[in-house]
Amino acid sequence: MSNDPFLDRLSRAREAARRLATATAAQKNAALEAIAAGIEGSVPRVVAANRLDLERGRESGLTEGLLDRLTLDESRLHGLASAVREVIALPDPVGQILRGSTLANGIQISQVRVPFGVVGAIYEARPNVTVDIAALALKSGNGAVLRGGTAAEQSNRVLVELIQEAISGVGLDGDAVQTVDEFGREGATRLMRARGYVDVLIPRGSAGLISTVVQESTVPVIETGSGIVHVFVDASADADTAVAIVENAKTHRPSVCNAAETLLVHRDAADRLLPRLAKTLLDRGVALYGDERTRGLADGLSPAEESTWETEHLALEMGVRVVDSLDEALAHIERYSTRHTEAIVTEDYENAQRFLAEVDSAVVMVNASTRFTDGGEFGFGAEVGISTQKLHARGPMGLQELTSTKWLVRGSGQIR
Amino acid sequence: MSNDPFLDRLSRAREAARRLATATAAQKNAALEAIAAGIEGSVPRVVAANRLDLERGRESGLTEGLLDRLTLDESRLHGLASAVREVIALPDPVGQILRGSTLANGIQISQVRVPFGVVGAIYEARPNVTVDIAALALKSGNGAVLRGGTAAEQSNRVLVELIQEAISGVGLDGDAVQTVDEFGREGATRLMRARGYVDVLIPRGSAGLISTVVQESTVPVIETGSGIVHVFVDASADADTAVAIVENAKTHRPSVCNAAETLLVHRDAADRLLPRLAKTLLDRGVALYGDERTRGLADGLSPAEESTWETEHLALEMGVRVVDSLDEALAHIERYSTRHTEAIVTEDYENAQRFLAEVDSAVVMVNASTRFTDGGEFGFGAEVGISTQKLHARGPMGLQELTSTKWLVRGSGQIR
Repeated sequence: MSNDPFLDRLSRAREAARRLATATAAQKNAALEAIAAGIEGSVPRVVAANRLDLERGRESGLTEGLLDRLTLDESRLHGLASAVREVIALPDPVGQILRGSTLANGIQISQVRVPFGVVGAIYEARPNVTVDIAALALKSGNGAVLRGGTAAEQSNRVLVELIQEAISGVGLDGDAVQTVDEFGREGATRLMRARGYVDVLIPRGSAGLISTVVQESTVPVIETGSGIVHVFVDASADADTAVAIVENAKTHRPSVCNAAETLLVHRDAADRLLPRLAKTLLDRGVALYGDERTRGLADGLSPAEESTWETEHLALEMGVRVVDSLDEALAHIERYSTRHTEAIVTEDYENAQRFLAEVDSAVVMVNASTRFTDGGEFGFGAEVGISTQKLHARGPMGLQELTSTKWLVRGSGQIR
Repeated sequence: MSNDPFLDRLSRAREAARRLATATAAQKNAALEAIAAGIEGSVPRVVAANRLDLERGRESGLTEGLLDRLTLDESRLHGLASAVREVIALPDPVGQILRGSTLANGIQISQVRVPFGVVGAIYEARPNVTVDIAALALKSGNGAVLRGGTAAEQSNRVLVELIQEAISGVGLDGDAVQTVDEFGREGATRLMRARGYVDVLIPRGSAGLISTVVQESTVPVIETGSGIVHVFVDASADADTAVAIVENAKTHRPSVCNAAETLLVHRDAADRLLPRLAKTLLDRGVALYGDERTRGLADGLSPAEESTWETEHLALEMGVRVVDSLDEALAHIERYSTRHTEAIVTEDYENAQRFLAEVDSAVVMVNASTRFTDGGEFGFGAEVGISTQKLHARGPMGLQELTSTKWLVRGSGQIR
């Protein structure tokens, strides 16, 4: 279709996606079941390819954490197949009618969900994401072009082959899912510039990766990820609630984006709550960095620096600051938040209302752990990522965030 | 607020927008009424400023068409004030709840419309757009940073002053609306790079302007505009309906984006309809460019070239082509359409259904003039533009397309 092997790959995905757009939910679900069965039936083949990636990863000095994320074994592959089957259970967003009306002249208009076309994804050395994104794209009627990184090239290649075979096996077009790993860094760059071939690009991974994609891409991007997440303990906060929420938000899973990074405490609650909050966190192994007032009220904290408030630790570390008022808390959040999730712990109705109204983040909470910002917890059943941008999608993204809309207009000869 | 006068302007808009986000509809409507009254009460001041722009425009050799678009007189200013009052009548999108649920653990989640923050607009020498965008941004709780072009600098400056005075006069922050015209081309470039200051950028104008913004901008863009719009007359088309729709779609207002540019006729309708279609269009002064088969069936057509199908004429010109089938019509549209609006004229139910399902454009019509792709016609009451992209907004954009959403989460101490 094109003499350029890279564009040929993209053209195939686009052509296949065009046909996939009108596939029924039953056809797409059959393809998903075939993908799940294909993965379960090819464990040795995937594990062998994965071993090649792991060997190369060890030679090139990948950290243990990265090697762990790269690893696929039998149990993880069965987990991946289960995740694909969960996508089958989700409602098909395509064809949903969002709104409509009959105009005064008798014309009927309706706005209906349609697939984007081709979804691009750029991520790093996590072959499970290959299957996740392919399944979500397929269910929402989209083609997918995947750039999963050279470190996972062999694993991704075999997984994409299995996916293509499964899709073709049920009579749809297997070209809908493509990998461009073998084109290396140039492939990633070209993917970001592939306007007309790729309709939306989703980067998943480090802040650096996401920032590069946002800066370089001419394809529309949905930015996901980084969370400098704040919990504000208001003057009226219930002690047990505050301690439980702060502990959970910080320590339940510190490496993820909805984990809290900064604790703000109202001065009128500081005497009462800071010592207990600090002790609870320190006992759980959290390194705390406090401003002067905080360190005057609790033991065991290191001094906070400006960088404390600007850092997504993704680890058992937390900045702690005493503020004079709700306004000062709001100003701190406005300045340092990445607009992912913020929570207030309060018993004061008006302060809860103000916090909900004035904090400009994807998710704003009262008296709940920030860990609830999650597609699964929100009942979306599958998570494409958590959007921290304002255009198109904000917060946890489910299948419907992988769709666009179009207007259908049915007339009987009307003219203006 | 910043030593950089350009960034200072943007920071002021951002700060003011933050406060505007929680303004009530009553406050915003009062500001809009003050703007309308301010324009009506300052006709001589605006006309005097506009005269300076017109003089400079004539000296620099602007075409009559551009000079006409640049002109503000008493009647046009009253029209602008009326348009602002129409925005008052529209419902406030901010605070609308889109969906929500109570999770199994008792947490209540709701997705609510919020303003973007600051909307940027880049357009050329049309001072009426200054008032339009400012009014729509204000009603949807957004600040606005406007780059309206050096050719309209004096007119825009006075209009923005009037708008700022009106907003301040009702107790809101007049800094919410800013112009950056005096920063020239560099201002436009910097506006496209103002991530963190501007939340979404809307280019309005020529295809060249829009393309530049899409290529250069790191701020998320909503692409508007260009329409290579097709009408397909199917084999079963009713003759009167086909002639009325084609004539209306091409000639009602040829300079706008929803005007038809290409006529496709099924070969089984060509003998019956092409001579009458061609005569009707030629009689209305439309220059027709036909493929060989078309020119064999109707007189007065020039030969079409490849460029015929790739051109948005925006004038009384039209390409005409005979196709063998619905599939060939769909393939032509897939290849040449800018995905704005396409229409089929048919009496065949199945072909109507296929056309609606398979054409991937913002608006797809059966038996209606493409001129109906319009915010006013769709009942949106005001039009921000017509989006031809798939992300966030597609087709005619009303006030709600100038909003984002956030999730409000109300708990009672839940943790994971």
